Amino acid sequence: MNDRRQPVLGILGGGQLARMLALAAAPLGVRALVVDSAADACAGQVAELVKADWTDYAALEAFAGQVDVVTFDFENVPADTAHWLAKRVAVFPAPRALAVAQDRLAEKTLFRECGLQTPDFKAIDTRAELDEALALIGAPAILKTRRLGYDGKGQFRIRSLADADAAWAALGAQASAHGLILEAFVPFERELSVIAVRGRHGEFRTWPLTQNWHTDGVLSLSLAPAPDVGALQDRATELARTLAEKLDYVGVFALELFVKNGELLGNEMAPRVHNSGHWTIEGAVTSQFENHVRAVIGLPLGDTSARGLSAMFNWIGELPDADPVLEAVDAHWHDYGKQPRPGRKVGHATVCAPNASVLMERLGGIAHALGRDQQVDAALRAVAK
Amino acid sequence: MNDRRQPVLGILGGGQLARMLALAAAPLGVRALVVDSAADACAGQVAELVKADWTDYAALEAFAGQVDVVTFDFENVPADTAHWLAKRVAVFPAPRALAVAQDRLAEKTLFRECGLQTPDFKAIDTRAELDEALALIGAPAILKTRRLGYDGKGQFRIRSLADADAAWAALGAQASAHGLILEAFVPFERELSVIAVRGRHGEFRTWPLTQNWHTDGVLSLSLAPAPDVGALQDRATELARTLAEKLDYVGVFALELFVKNGELLGNEMAPRVHNSGHWTIEGAVTSQFENHVRAVIGLPLGDTSARGLSAMFNWIGELPDADPVLEAVDAHWHDYGKQPRPGRKVGHATVCAPNASVLMERLGGIAHALGRDQQVDAALRAVAK
Repeated sequence: MNDRRQPVLGILGGGQLARMLALAAAPLGVRALVVDSAADACAGQVAELVKADWTDYAALEAFAGQVDVVTFDFENVPADTAHWLAKRVAVFPAPRALAVAQDRLAEKTLFRECGLQTPDFKAIDTRAELDEALALIGAPAILKTRRLGYDGKGQFRIRSLADADAAWAALGAQASAHGLILEAFVPFERELSVIAVRGRHGEFRTWPLTQNWHTDGVLSLSLAPAPDVGALQDRATELARTLAEKLDYVGVFALELFVKNGELLGNEMAPRVHNSGHWTIEGAVTSQFENHVRAVIGLPLGDTSARGLSAMFNWIGELPDADPVLEAVDAHWHDYGKQPRPGRKVGHATVCAPNASVLMERLGGIAHALGRDQQVDAALRAVAK
Repeated sequence: MNDRRQPVLGILGGGQLARMLALAAAPLGVRALVVDSAADACAGQVAELVKADWTDYAALEAFAGQVDVVTFDFENVPADTAHWLAKRVAVFPAPRALAVAQDRLAEKTLFRECGLQTPDFKAIDTRAELDEALALIGAPAILKTRRLGYDGKGQFRIRSLADADAAWAALGAQASAHGLILEAFVPFERELSVIAVRGRHGEFRTWPLTQNWHTDGVLSLSLAPAPDVGALQDRATELARTLAEKLDYVGVFALELFVKNGELLGNEMAPRVHNSGHWTIEGAVTSQFENHVRAVIGLPLGDTSARGLSAMFNWIGELPDADPVLEAVDAHWHDYGKQPRPGRKVGHATVCAPNASVLMERLGGIAHALGRDQQVDAALRAVAK
C-alpha cells in the first residue's frame, strides 16, 4: 500500500468559524491549514496556523503551495488577496461571489435580480446624496458602509431627518474608501435566515429556516426549525438556489431575511458558514461546517434534515458558568478558546429537544439558572405559539 | 476582564483515540497536549504533539509542567511512567486502575471479586504449569500474555492438547517477562460491551449495551443499543459500577462481556475510551470522548442516552471508498488520518437510524455498495430478530 496524502483545506482567517471548520474537517480526513495575522487565533488550537497578514504574498505563496483548496473564515479578506490566490489554487467560494457579498449595494441589486424584494436602498457617496436619499426613502433609515460591516459595525440608525448630520459625522469619512448605502428601516415581524450549501458540481441543499433574535446588532439567539413558516421554507430555498446559481457559488452561505406582511425581504448574504447555523452541529444530521468542507473539497453533500428542535444561545464578551449547560440533557457547550473582550463572540450553547414543550423546559431552565431569562424570552414565546 | 487560561489535558499516546478525545475536548474549551514517540501520530493533526518515548523523563517533566490532567490513549503505557507522572500531576485513570486492567490475571481476579463470573483461567509461568492447567481446564483454550495484549495480539488458540508445544513455542519466551494465562475457550452466544464513565466525585453513568462482532480478533462491527438484552443492561451497569468503585476509577472504560446461557461472563476491561463506543459520537447524546474529557477534567457528566439505533463499521488496513457512506442519510465517516498498513485501524463509519428497519436498510445498502455484505451480515440478523 502506498503512502496517502490527505487533502489540505486552507482557511483564510483563524476565528471560531475556522476552528469549527477544522473540527468538522478532521473526521473527513481533511487537514486544515489556517492563515491569520494573530499568532493566538483560536483555530490554531486545533489546526496548523500560519501567521501572516493579507498582503504578505511570500507567506501566501508558500500557503498556496501547501493546500488543495482555499476557503474563508472571514468574508472581508481583501478582494486582491482572494484573486491573487485564485490564480494559484482553487478558491471556494470564488472571489467574484465573495465580492458581491462584500458589497451591500451589489448584494441588494442581485437580490432584486433574483426576485427577492429588499428594503428601499440608495448608494451614497456624498453628503448631498445622503439628503437626496433621505428625502426619497424617509426616516427611520440606516446608513451603512457598503463594505466591511458585520455584527452591526459600520452602521448608523437615522431616527429622523435631523440625524443626518450625526450620521455623516459617524460614517461620512468612509464614503470615499468603502462607499455608503442608505437603507429604509423596515419594521419587520421576524428575522429568519436560510443556511444553504452548493457543491462543486451544482448539488444544492438548504437546512430548515432558522429564526433569529439580535441584541445591539449581534445575534443573541437562534431557533430552528423556525416555527410556522409554511410556504416561506420553499420560497427561501428557491431564492437561495437562484442566488447560488447566479454566483456559481460553492460552499455554505447564509441568506438573512426579514418577514414583513408575511413576505420575505432580503437583508444580507454572508458568503460563509454563519452564526445562525451553529445549531446544525448537534441539531442537524450534517452540520454546516461538515457540508462546507464536503462542498469545497468536492465530496458528496450530507443530509441537512433537523433532528428535532434546537435553540442556540450566543455568548458575547465572556462565557457564563458552563455547569447549567453541561448538566442539562442534550445541551451542548461550545467554548471558542478566545480571550474575553467586550462585544466579542466567545462561545455558544445549543439546546436540543424532540418537541416544543421539552425545548421550552430545557431552554427556560438553562436561561433561568444563568440569570438570562431575557435572552430566551422571545424565543420561548415563538415556540409556545 | 483578565486573561483566562484554558485547562490542558495531557494525553499519553497519539493514535485515533487521542485524536477523537482532542476533537471532543475543543468545544469544552480544553486544550489537548499529546505525547507520542512518532512525530506523525495522527492526533498531532488536531492537537499539539510532543515527540517523546515513555522513558524520556526530561520530556515528560516538561509535559507534566504544561498540563492540568494526564490521561491515556494507550493502556500499555509502562506502569513506571504512569506512577512517575502521578507524583507530579493528576493522572486519570489512576496508575493502580491502569495496572489492574493491564494484567489479565489481576483483572479476572477482580471480576470475580465483583461477582462477575469469567471463563476458567490459570496463571502460567512454566511449560509444566501449562500442562497442569490444560489438564484442569481442558481444550479448547487460549494461551495469552498477561500483559500488553490487544486486538488479538499475544494470543494462541489451543484446539487440542496436542497444540501445547506449538503454543509454548509461540508465547513461552514471554512467560518470564509478562507472565502467561490460560483461559478456557467459551462457546459464547454473543459478545457485548458496556461503556461506562465515572467522574472525579463518583458520578457514574453507562451507555446502552453494545453488541460486537470480531474478525481475526479485531472488532469488525458494533450495534447499539444491543437488541433484546432485557435484564442484562441493569446487570452490566451494576457490575461496571462495582468495578469502577473498587478501583476508584475516573474516566471512561469498557467492560467486554460474553453471554453464555443468558448469563454475563467477564472477558476483559479496557481502561480507556473504546472502539466499541465509537458509535456514541453520533448515536448518543454525549459521546464517550466528551464524557471522558468531562470526567477527568472534573466537569459534570453528560447524558448517555442513545439517539435511535447505530451501527459502526471498522475500517482495517485501508479505507474503502467513502462515497457510499457520505451519500447515505445519517451515516458518518471517520478517517483517522493514518497511513494504510495491514491490520491497522484506519477509520470507521457509523450509521444511525430511528428504528430497526431503517437501520437495516441503510446498513445493508452501504455494505452492499462497498462489497462488504459479509461484514454486516450477523448484525443484520441480530437487528431483524
